[in-house]
Amino acid sequence: MALTVIGSMAFDSIETPFGKKRDILGGSATFASISASFFTPVNIISVVGTDFSEKYIKMFQKRGVDTRGIEIKKGNTFRWEAKYNYDLSHAETLSTHLNVFDGFRPLIPAHIKPVDNLLLANIDPDLQSYIFSKIKPKGLVACDTMNLWIQHRRKSLLNLLKKIDLFLLNDAEARQLSGESNLLDAAKFISKSGVKMVVIKKGEHGALFFSGKLRFMVPAYLLERITDPTGAGDTFAGGMMGYLTRQASVNDRSLRKALVYGSILASFAVEQFSVEGLTNITRKDINSRYRHFEKLTKF
Amino acid sequence: MALTVIGSMAFDSIETPFGKKRDILGGSATFASISASFFTPVNIISVVGTDFSEKYIKMFQKRGVDTRGIEIKKGNTFRWEAKYNYDLSHAETLSTHLNVFDGFRPLIPAHIKPVDNLLLANIDPDLQSYIFSKIKPKGLVACDTMNLWIQHRRKSLLNLLKKIDLFLLNDAEARQLSGESNLLDAAKFISKSGVKMVVIKKGEHGALFFSGKLRFMVPAYLLERITDPTGAGDTFAGGMMGYLTRQASVNDRSLRKALVYGSILASFAVEQFSVEGLTNITRKDINSRYRHFEKLTKF
Repeated sequence: MALTVIGSMAFDSIETPFGKKRDILGGSATFASISASFFTPVNIISVVGTDFSEKYIKMFQKRGVDTRGIEIKKGNTFRWEAKYNYDLSHAETLSTHLNVFDGFRPLIPAHIKPVDNLLLANIDPDLQSYIFSKIKPKGLVACDTMNLWIQHRRKSLLNLLKKIDLFLLNDAEARQLSGESNLLDAAKFISKSGVKMVVIKKGEHGALFFSGKLRFMVPAYLLERITDPTGAGDTFAGGMMGYLTRQASVNDRSLRKALVYGSILASFAVEQFSVEGLTNITRKDINSRYRHFEKLTKF
Repeated sequence: MALTVIGSMAFDSIETPFGKKRDILGGSATFASISASFFTPVNIISVVGTDFSEKYIKMFQKRGVDTRGIEIKKGNTFRWEAKYNYDLSHAETLSTHLNVFDGFRPLIPAHIKPVDNLLLANIDPDLQSYIFSKIKPKGLVACDTMNLWIQHRRKSLLNLLKKIDLFLLNDAEARQLSGESNLLDAAKFISKSGVKMVVIKKGEHGALFFSGKLRFMVPAYLLERITDPTGAGDTFAGGMMGYLTRQASVNDRSLRKALVYGSILASFAVEQFSVEGLTNITRKDINSRYRHFEKLTKF
């Protein structure tokens, strides 16, 4: 069993109170794939421009990420420029250039199997729906999103939610989509769309899980230093789905652990710029932080 | 063993998006005493005016709160008027009338024993210090505060912290006092003042505990409806100290549980205006929410 991840690959230019970096590797599929790769084989589907570096492709391959689904198109890779102030929970977008992502409709490579789990990482819901309809997935399907799509692709997003199992979004997005200020009310509203499970990510405050019978919550791992929050949500989704893909079944126990692993992977991601917080660690570091997390939260 | 609680007793006029109430029972000692009374005998020290109602005094007594330390002074009871918008985490103070609290320096009644635990609920640190110096406590001593005192009584507060065991404040106040944006850094700064244990309350996001060797965190109980957040922090402090007063010793295990009980008591308090969320429940309701909390958070 593997996990298929579809989403963006990008060059980000990021400024935070702790530094400034230009054209660093980013994108929702990038963070999610690397995060999931600690637990399971991953197939990535995305598109990059001819300016993309071969060294990144090799980095993915070394981690067990099958890159045959990365299309290289004439033009430039997707670019995003953003700035965070001391309130690291909100990014101010300075510029977005879709470049090769504009109108991208991938061919689904033959090695992508419907039985595999599928993570539709944050990208236009129309593209997420297109991929869904082409793969016709039989495994667990999760979808992540962002405020932009809730505003401009609300109908597409709500249509997609009818077909998938697990929907991840942050607290501000949950309030935006539902029009409810209380997160329990927001989760109930979202569940009415037909999606079976909802995860509301609260950044440095942890995450909440809702499904018909099941509710639980995990705090976020306490960090001394957050350098760059970019990709935290994608990393959370990738870690959660990567862990679930490796388990025999999706149940109360595995879902709770998946939420904790998502939270822990995200905690590594935000400690450094780009994907360095993830590529500089091993499974042993993850296990050690998991045990520390247990100590921090048990009562 | 009992818990002595010193703090304010007040009439609050509160407006939230869910209603508007005039001259309802409030004050830090009020919320903290009622919360602690579920676990331990409480001695309250405070002052009210001749406009205070005997029915409230009886309500305290019925709950095992010894009211001999409530001084009735000629004049009006402390009054506070505030408004919350949909972001219930911040109260806008519309007016404060100290009334009988102005310059209040209580005589310590003979039944207050130094061996009992002491909670210096939120009130002017000069008054907290005065009480401390008069009681010369030998038990566990906790202190709560607010942004106003951090701004105007910073020196007094830092002096007091040298002498006490446990300091409770919220996340914004921790950042204000320390000048640190990261809460771990803030806790380290505060610990340098000499206080042994620091609890940072994060409202709907739970609470963090820090001491030399020990760190842990609890999420807040998920609520369908928050009606009035007034007194949540006082209730948290009272529940935590009430629970600890009932335990044989203050250790890792009892401190973790105390944090959870503080969080649960606060969850009841915010469901209704004034103290009604607390006076309408029994210990059985608390136990049942504790078990639900375990289910919500275990992994």
